[in-house]
Amino acid sequence: MQETISVLGGSQTKFGELWGYDLKELIDEAVADAIRSAGIMPTDIDAIVVANMMGSDVNGQGHLGAYASSILPHHPPALRVEAACASGGVAIHTACALLESNRAGTVLVVGAEKLTDASNEDITKAIMSAGDNERDSASGLTFPGIFGLVANRYMYEHGLTRDQLSLVSALHHKNAVTNPYAQFHKEIAPEVISTSALVADPLRLLDCSPISDGAAAVILSTTKSSPVQLLASHVANDHISLADRTSVTSFMTTRNAMERALEEANVKREDIDVIELHDCFSIAALIHMEDMGFAEAGRGIELYQEPRLAVNPSGGLKACGHPIGATGVKQIVDCWKQLTKKAPNQTKDATVALAHNIGGVAATCALHILATNA
Amino acid sequence: MQETISVLGGSQTKFGELWGYDLKELIDEAVADAIRSAGIMPTDIDAIVVANMMGSDVNGQGHLGAYASSILPHHPPALRVEAACASGGVAIHTACALLESNRAGTVLVVGAEKLTDASNEDITKAIMSAGDNERDSASGLTFPGIFGLVANRYMYEHGLTRDQLSLVSALHHKNAVTNPYAQFHKEIAPEVISTSALVADPLRLLDCSPISDGAAAVILSTTKSSPVQLLASHVANDHISLADRTSVTSFMTTRNAMERALEEANVKREDIDVIELHDCFSIAALIHMEDMGFAEAGRGIELYQEPRLAVNPSGGLKACGHPIGATGVKQIVDCWKQLTKKAPNQTKDATVALAHNIGGVAATCALHILATNA
Repeated sequence: MQETISVLGGSQTKFGELWGYDLKELIDEAVADAIRSAGIMPTDIDAIVVANMMGSDVNGQGHLGAYASSILPHHPPALRVEAACASGGVAIHTACALLESNRAGTVLVVGAEKLTDASNEDITKAIMSAGDNERDSASGLTFPGIFGLVANRYMYEHGLTRDQLSLVSALHHKNAVTNPYAQFHKEIAPEVISTSALVADPLRLLDCSPISDGAAAVILSTTKSSPVQLLASHVANDHISLADRTSVTSFMTTRNAMERALEEANVKREDIDVIELHDCFSIAALIHMEDMGFAEAGRGIELYQEPRLAVNPSGGLKACGHPIGATGVKQIVDCWKQLTKKAPNQTKDATVALAHNIGGVAATCALHILATNA
Repeated sequence: MQETISVLGGSQTKFGELWGYDLKELIDEAVADAIRSAGIMPTDIDAIVVANMMGSDVNGQGHLGAYASSILPHHPPALRVEAACASGGVAIHTACALLESNRAGTVLVVGAEKLTDASNEDITKAIMSAGDNERDSASGLTFPGIFGLVANRYMYEHGLTRDQLSLVSALHHKNAVTNPYAQFHKEIAPEVISTSALVADPLRLLDCSPISDGAAAVILSTTKSSPVQLLASHVANDHISLADRTSVTSFMTTRNAMERALEEANVKREDIDVIELHDCFSIAALIHMEDMGFAEAGRGIELYQEPRLAVNPSGGLKACGHPIGATGVKQIVDCWKQLTKKAPNQTKDATVALAHNIGGVAATCALHILATNA
C-alpha cells in the first residue's frame, strides 16, 4: 500500500428478508453504526464510496452516492461503484485510491442491496446483467445455470462427487449458527443438501447463495489509526463472457489478484488465518480456494473434509446472505471483527485475514488482505 | 493535483439516434479511437474507469468495467462509476485518484449510454432514479418538471423573460452546426424555441437536452506527457432531493466545486477561455454560470446576450447531445480539442478550459480545469 490505511470500524445490518426496510434505511443503519463503531464524528468523513448493483433497476433509486452524502451533515464528495457482485470489494479498492491520493484522509464505504421486494424471476434476470447480455443471457443461461456447467466440468475433470460437494454449504451453514447478523441459523446435514431441490444439475438449492437484503459499512483512514490495517488491495479482470475463457474450472482473476496481493502485503499464504470467501455457489468456493493456492487443483474439497484454516466463519454468502452490493464490504467488516476479537465465531489468534469478492463469472475479483499489529 | 496528469488523447462517437450500434459497440469505437489519438499501445493502459448510468436498466448489461477490460488484450483492472448525469465527470475524478495513488500510470476513462432503443416513457422514468425516489419521483415529478419549477422560480425572482431564455438554446444550436459529432446541425431562432411544444411550463421542447446514444473516451497519464494537463478535479455533493434545499435558483455543488477547483488549479476565473457547461435544460445553464461566478445572480442571460467567453462551443448537452454516461467524458474530450487546436468550433488562443458536469438536480457536481503548456 502507498499509505498505511487503518480500518477504524465497521458494521452490518442483519442480512435476510428485511421487509421493514427500504434501500435507504439499510444504508442509514449501516452508516450510523459504522460511524459509532469507529468512534469518529460524521464530519470526519472526507469522501464516500457506495457499492450497489441494482438500486436503479429494482428499487428505482440510482445516484446513491448523492443519497449517502445527503445523510451526513456536511455532504462530502461521494460516488457509486458497480462491479456486479464484486461491487463491495471494488468500492473498498476505490476508497484506498482516494486515501492514497491524499484526496481524502477518512473514507466511508457503504454497500447495500434491497432485493426481496422484487420477484425471483426479476432478480434472476437482473443478476444476469453481470454476464454478457448477448452471449450468456441471450442463450438462456442464468447464474445457477452457468455454475451448473462449471460444476459438471469440475466433477468430470476431478472426480468430485455430489456428496463431497455438499460439505461446502454444510460448513458455511454451521459457521453461521452463532452469527447474529446471518440470514440463516440452521445446521444443515450434507445429505439434506445433496437431496434438496434441483436447480441446475448438479447444483441444488442448498448449493446456491440466497437472495438477500442488507447493508454493510466500514470507515478507512490514513489520518487516524487503529490496530487493524489493510496490507493489500487488488482488483483483477478477465473476459466478461464465459465463452471467451480457456478454462471454466479455474479463474484467472482470483489467481492474479491473489498473487499481486500477497506480494503487496508481503505475507505468505501460510500466514493467513481466516478467509471470507465468495461462495456464491458451493462449487465456486472450491475453485477459488484452489486458485488462491490453498489446495491443488481438484483437491479444494480437502479443506472442507479436514479444515485447516477458517473459511467463512461468518457463514459466507451461502448462510450469512448475499445482498449483492453489501457483500464485499461486509467481508471487510467480518475480517476486522476477527482481527479485533469481536467475531461471534472467533478464530483463535487470528492476525492476518483475507477477503475475496467476485463479480460475474469471476470476470472481476477484488481481493484484500488485512492484519492486526495489536 | 498531487501529480501532473496529462490528457494524452480522446475521442467520441457521433451522438444521436444511433440505431446501428449497441452499447458495447459504442464503447468499442470510442476506446479504439481514444487509444489511436493518444498514440499509445492498448497494453499501456493500467486501469479502466467506465461511466454509465442505465446499462443494466435499459440495455440489460451491467458490469461494464469487466466488459471494457474484456476488449483490451491484457484485461487491466476496471470498474464502473455512476453518479447519474455526472457519471462521466466523476469517472474522470476517480481516474485522477487512481493516478495520484500511483496504482496506475495510464488510465482509460470511457463513458457510454445507449438510450434510443427504449421508449421515452421508460427513459424518463429511469432518469428519475437520479432524484429521490420517494419524495421527488413519487410526487409525479420528472426532470423537465423539476427544472420547470426551477425556471418558474428564477423568472419570479429575477424577471427573466421567456424570450430571453430562448437565447440559451439558440447559441448552443448555433455552436453545434460545425461539430461533426453533434446530434443536431441546425441553427434555431429564439422565436422558434419560445413557441416550441410546451413540456413543463415555462420550459419548452427546445429548452431540453435530447435523449441520445453515444460514447466518449479519454486517456489520462502520469507516466507519459502531453501539452494538455488537468489542473483541478473536484466533486461536490448536496441533498439528493430538491425538497431539502434552501434555494432552487442556486446550486451549492457548482459553487463549492468551482471554488475548490480554482484554488487547486491556482488560476483566476478570468483566465478561463472556454467552458463545456452542463446545460441539461436552458435554465440550468444560466444558474450554473452564475454559481461559477461568471455573472451575478439573475444576470446569467447577459453571457448569452453579449457573449464574452466561449460557452459550449461543441453545442453542449442541448445540441451536441446527452448520452448520459458519456457526457462528462466528452466534455473533457472537447476541452482537450480546444487546447490542442483541434476543435471544429475553435476558440482563439484558448489556454485554460473548464468542464462542468452535473448529476440529478445538481446533487453531484464534477468540475475539471485543464490547461495547455504548449
